[in-house]
Amino acid sequence: MTDAVRQLWGAPVEEALRARPGLRLADLDARATPGFTGSKADGRAAMAATGVRLADLQERLYAHGRTGGTRSVLLVLQGPDTAGKGGVVREVLGMVDPQGVALRAFGVPTPAEREQHFLQRVRAALPPAGRIGVFDRSHHEDVLVPRVEGLVPPDVLERRYDEIVRFEEEVVAAGTTVVKVLLWVSADEQHARLRTRLTQPEKHWKYDPSDVDARLRRGAYEEAYEAVLERTSTDVAPWYVVPADRRWFARLAVTALLHRALDDLGLGWPAPTYDVAAELARLDASR
Amino acid sequence: MTDAVRQLWGAPVEEALRARPGLRLADLDARATPGFTGSKADGRAAMAATGVRLADLQERLYAHGRTGGTRSVLLVLQGPDTAGKGGVVREVLGMVDPQGVALRAFGVPTPAEREQHFLQRVRAALPPAGRIGVFDRSHHEDVLVPRVEGLVPPDVLERRYDEIVRFEEEVVAAGTTVVKVLLWVSADEQHARLRTRLTQPEKHWKYDPSDVDARLRRGAYEEAYEAVLERTSTDVAPWYVVPADRRWFARLAVTALLHRALDDLGLGWPAPTYDVAAELARLDASR
Repeated sequence: MTDAVRQLWGAPVEEALRARPGLRLADLDARATPGFTGSKADGRAAMAATGVRLADLQERLYAHGRTGGTRSVLLVLQGPDTAGKGGVVREVLGMVDPQGVALRAFGVPTPAEREQHFLQRVRAALPPAGRIGVFDRSHHEDVLVPRVEGLVPPDVLERRYDEIVRFEEEVVAAGTTVVKVLLWVSADEQHARLRTRLTQPEKHWKYDPSDVDARLRRGAYEEAYEAVLERTSTDVAPWYVVPADRRWFARLAVTALLHRALDDLGLGWPAPTYDVAAELARLDASR
Repeated sequence: MTDAVRQLWGAPVEEALRARPGLRLADLDARATPGFTGSKADGRAAMAATGVRLADLQERLYAHGRTGGTRSVLLVLQGPDTAGKGGVVREVLGMVDPQGVALRAFGVPTPAEREQHFLQRVRAALPPAGRIGVFDRSHHEDVLVPRVEGLVPPDVLERRYDEIVRFEEEVVAAGTTVVKVLLWVSADEQHARLRTRLTQPEKHWKYDPSDVDARLRRGAYEEAYEAVLERTSTDVAPWYVVPADRRWFARLAVTALLHRALDDLGLGWPAPTYDVAAELARLDASR
């Protein structure tokens, strides 16, 4: 991060956004820009500048993955419909080399997946060494919909929180930095975004009638998201809550969180695994 | 493609680059820009303009994939080391939404893969409906290295060409447009690029001693690539040969070929599968 960009953050992004115990989502100002003191234009400039650094760090991570390194990064994106998960993927991950990104969207479990342990499909999708993995929805969905809809018995639900915590501890211990982001959109902004999907024919495909069903249970979903934050935010895999009514801020915040995660790895360029001088001589002899 | 961009192409890109019968790669001018009459600056501008159109078409393709459509596009990238396959992925596919891209790099087959039919891992990696699949190397590698190194008997090799042709016919018949691109770099330019990898520490990880081994057999590889073009370029899945000494041209050419492939699908936006007026009423009632 450049000094100019750093000055626009009044507090380090990971401190400003980390989920606080007892957070009530109904009280969250989804138009706020916690930690960031700049305007929308500043935010766009900061995102572009941070994106250049992110692309460099991503290449280092990839280079290490190609030469025996074991580190990777996993971005877990959660949030209600229209919170902007897709836009984050397009605009934030769009700033780095597609070869370094392993993207996986999790939908409603298929009948075959339903017969497996809920973490099985998630384990199978963990990023290989050297990659930035992105989960668009994730195993956290398995304690959201089932809780609100009463699809699993309470004791199973209880066990799942603990299993998630242990699972994420294992993932971190194996060398993957886990960055969990809840994008939060207000009821009014969600209404406006869904309305756009219904009034612009090129956005009709993004709308699903179940989006309104979920709106009608907003209170129950808020409570379920709060339980996720409370039960699964740990020191090794904390949750970040990103107000997302301002798209530019949500994208900037995720860029900054990812940048921070990669920067913390402290990666230089990998040392060559061959004799450079000998290879130069062989190469020149091959002209 | 805008009119301004179209005027820079003296011939349609797919005509200018399609592999001609009897092509000798040793005679190919790898610095040429077939069909394109503009400068490097024109090329960059044309690529950006075509990229905007490509991103729009990619979103339509994705939208259809999400709403029951069956079409997809598969870009097959082949070429010797340093030909620029990675740069094409980063710069060309980097212009579209990462969610719409399914990228797969094929390396030397693992022992388990070697026990399967050579097309098995390729079938498993075909793009889902609505995606642009990208193969960085592919099943065509299975008639290159084995031919040059004599790893499989001649009759097996012969059969593979026919199996590849039938396989690609099936893939096309199932709704996937196949765009096969051979990026071709001259021996001198390859030398210069490998030298850069050996003299710049941040590029050491991209160098592999086997790159020089392959250079020493350049003649045999040229002949093997020519056999691929001769035996597997078909009307439904033709090969395009892209001179790649000028990186900007190679990236522009692949952008234009992909744009053409998506444009030919003639996709509008999918019609809604729900009652728009009824959903608007439900949505407004949920405020």
